[in-house]
Amino acid sequence: MPSSERSGDAALYARQGFGAGLGIGVTPALLLVDFMHGFIAPDVLGSPEIEAASLASVPVLAFARRHNWPVAHSRIVFADDGSDANIFSRKVPSLLALTENAPISAIVPHLQPVPGELVIRKKVPSAFFGTDLAPWLTARAVDTLFVAGCVTSGCVRASVVDAMSCGFRTIVLEDCVGDRARAPHDASMFDMVQKNADIMTGSGMMEVFSRGADVSGAR
Amino acid sequence: MPSSERSGDAALYARQGFGAGLGIGVTPALLLVDFMHGFIAPDVLGSPEIEAASLASVPVLAFARRHNWPVAHSRIVFADDGSDANIFSRKVPSLLALTENAPISAIVPHLQPVPGELVIRKKVPSAFFGTDLAPWLTARAVDTLFVAGCVTSGCVRASVVDAMSCGFRTIVLEDCVGDRARAPHDASMFDMVQKNADIMTGSGMMEVFSRGADVSGAR
Amino acid sequence: MPSSERSGDAALYARQGFGAGLGIGVTPALLLVDFMHGFIAPDVLGSPEIEAASLASVPVLAFARRHNWPVAHSRIVFADDGSDANIFSRKVPSLLALTENAPISAIVPHLQPVPGELVIRKKVPSAFFGTDLAPWLTARAVDTLFVAGCVTSGCVRASVVDAMSCGFRTIVLEDCVGDRARAPHDASMFDMVQKNADIMTGSGMMEVFSRGADVSGAR
Amino acid sequence: MPSSERSGDAALYARQGFGAGLGIGVTPALLLVDFMHGFIAPDVLGSPEIEAASLASVPVLAFARRHNWPVAHSRIVFADDGSDANIFSRKVPSLLALTENAPISAIVPHLQPVPGELVIRKKVPSAFFGTDLAPWLTARAVDTLFVAGCVTSGCVRASVVDAMSCGFRTIVLEDCVGDRARAPHDASMFDMVQKNADIMTGSGMMEVFSRGADVSGAR
Repeated sequence: MPSSERSGDAALYARQGFGAGLGIGVTPALLLVDFMHGFIAPDVLGSPEIEAASLASVPVLAFARRHNWPVAHSRIVFADDGSDANIFSRKVPSLLALTENAPISAIVPHLQPVPGELVIRKKVPSAFFGTDLAPWLTARAVDTLFVAGCVTSGCVRASVVDAMSCGFRTIVLEDCVGDRARAPHDASMFDMVQKNADIMTGSGMMEVFSRGADVSGAR
Repeated sequence: MPSSERSGDAALYARQGFGAGLGIGVTPALLLVDFMHGFIAPDVLGSPEIEAASLASVPVLAFARRHNWPVAHSRIVFADDGSDANIFSRKVPSLLALTENAPISAIVPHLQPVPGELVIRKKVPSAFFGTDLAPWLTARAVDTLFVAGCVTSGCVRASVVDAMSCGFRTIVLEDCVGDRARAPHDASMFDMVQKNADIMTGSGMMEVFSRGADVSGAR
Repeated sequence: MPSSERSGDAALYARQGFGAGLGIGVTPALLLVDFMHGFIAPDVLGSPEIEAASLASVPVLAFARRHNWPVAHSRIVFADDGSDANIFSRKVPSLLALTENAPISAIVPHLQPVPGELVIRKKVPSAFFGTDLAPWLTARAVDTLFVAGCVTSGCVRASVVDAMSCGFRTIVLEDCVGDRARAPHDASMFDMVQKNADIMTGSGMMEVFSRGADVSGAR
Repeated sequence: MPSSERSGDAALYARQGFGAGLGIGVTPALLLVDFMHGFIAPDVLGSPEIEAASLASVPVLAFARRHNWPVAHSRIVFADDGSDANIFSRKVPSLLALTENAPISAIVPHLQPVPGELVIRKKVPSAFFGTDLAPWLTARAVDTLFVAGCVTSGCVRASVVDAMSCGFRTIVLEDCVGDRARAPHDASMFDMVQKNADIMTGSGMMEVFSRGADVSGAR
């Protein structure tokens, strides 16, 4: 939407009491949503904006590893025989090609998981729905979840709403999330900051943690 | 977003295989999301668009009752003592005023539940998250869920994504959902029709069922 | 427990209103819980009783396939790098050896899934918790779930309680479930029939469906 | 089961690697399951053993409050009009009498919730299923859950399995849980300690926390 309209909406939301800040807790974790080859290549399900978000996520992932944060990656993976087809794949049939060994469902090389990082296989937008992500974070006492990934208006947003609903302070890294088109990205960022999550840039997040020595992942 | 931009996005989505139709199954149900006084009054958390959606839902609710569909209503209800405050209420503190007996949390008079209809009390956007809505629909063999309510970009959208993830064919009644501002409504309708749900008007839905005698709720 | 004590308990439960019958609905499905090599071999995590249950399940599986019922199998599968270790694996550390390609985590040859049957990978007792089993059954309009598998007092029981909570009429096939020891099996069968599920034998179930032509899985 | 048989089973379980200890984490909470009048009065759904468990829970609740632990209580509550009847209430029809204002569904006087304590209304055995209990604990950074309540083989056990599955170290307070009959209680305690939870007495728990000053609920 045009930015003039956006600022009018923001004023209305502020009057009605939306958009308070959540802040950062004691034990952060990082979630990388669906940074798969097929969501980055523009000729498959991707876009250049998603590729840029994946590149901006590289230093963030390195930072999280250096500070020993729990790190989780999600992928969309359907069974080879299509036995787990669902309403989502009926709506977007091309998703069924994202099978375990299909190159398009592989996480991109620059964000490859390392041993000890959780890899969630999911079949719906949210990385929490029908997975063990929330219990995994809970067992690690996580209270704050930083989110990168794609796409902003789809799997990122659904994961952010669920992260909040699961009880985590959720912070979207705005330059580390991308979408197929600009308008859905902008609209979802607006909605999330008003109702679900805080928003920071990747570098802004790293600066905050570098300043405050006691906000580390160690406890 | 401007409609020219929207149609360009739609073409991109179509090329990538989004937006297939789900169709209507055998056993439909109706979900009315958060049609509470406080979300309709513009001076609280509402807007005139939400009021219009609530009025358009009146004949739809009457139709569902006449055909004996399972009907569920959701409300946001927090405890009187604030003991169940959560991340959502930290982000939108005014939600804590929506207590069991507060007039603003009451369902509007023209959409009052009648005995036998489920009333879901929830504390997060989705009517499915942390509630017994999905099991209730499953026990009634529902396969198709029509959704009305407010707001489009918030609780309606979160409920629609979860309805799809729970395995229901989900159909948003576009004139029966409303939002606080036009841009978030339009953006969420675009996203939902591409990735989560079919879209019909209330009168279009009633016409389809009136034509085909065997698509009734009876089984 | 001694059978005299059992019957005294049953009388008490009957007086308090437990143990009503659920009956069979319109669309049945079959769930085979954790019939993995490691749970059948007595020297790993199994017992002879579990092997017997797996053999009794062979004609039941054949029957379900002949009638085109949805069929789901569950396996316990942990990641090769142990990244998804959880509280369950902390309590029973030997579970971590059940990795994707470990022979002990393979479904036994006589109950191998065929294309189109769902294979659930899980990390906790219930086949529903953190999986897409409930949405998969819902999308197929299932209202009745027959359950075979192992072990009765562990993953079977947890799955049965969740199946009921998810809204399915649940029927335990008593000769098709087995445990590591007799006492836990008997105690869990008693609890389930009182509070969660109906109970039939595999042959009893097949006889009921063979008699009544209209109780088929086709709809 | 006879204790001789029990010890034989325990030896088998130990050989197979069950029953490791979970230990106590940093932030404990207390869950009191279904200590409702109707589950304590022997002429309704209760037993003298359940009453004894409720009395043993009194000092435990006082201890939890003194240490500012999060405290949650669950009740079974069905709607006055029976609109939310489910498979559980079809199996145990007397549950439908447990409505919001029915005296039998009230928490017993000696364990009344105080402001700030969560009261979960549920319609299935587990206090986690279809409720906001897990998010509520997560938002309070809880990692260890002590469980009291009734009945051991029903709602306590289902809640304990789910607590473990949700990622919490779970500890059953054995003198603070009770059942309608002795055999189901004993069998469920055996299963839980082997596969799901640690076990302590209420006084043992209080002693542990009194000794170690740094294992308090404050963080």
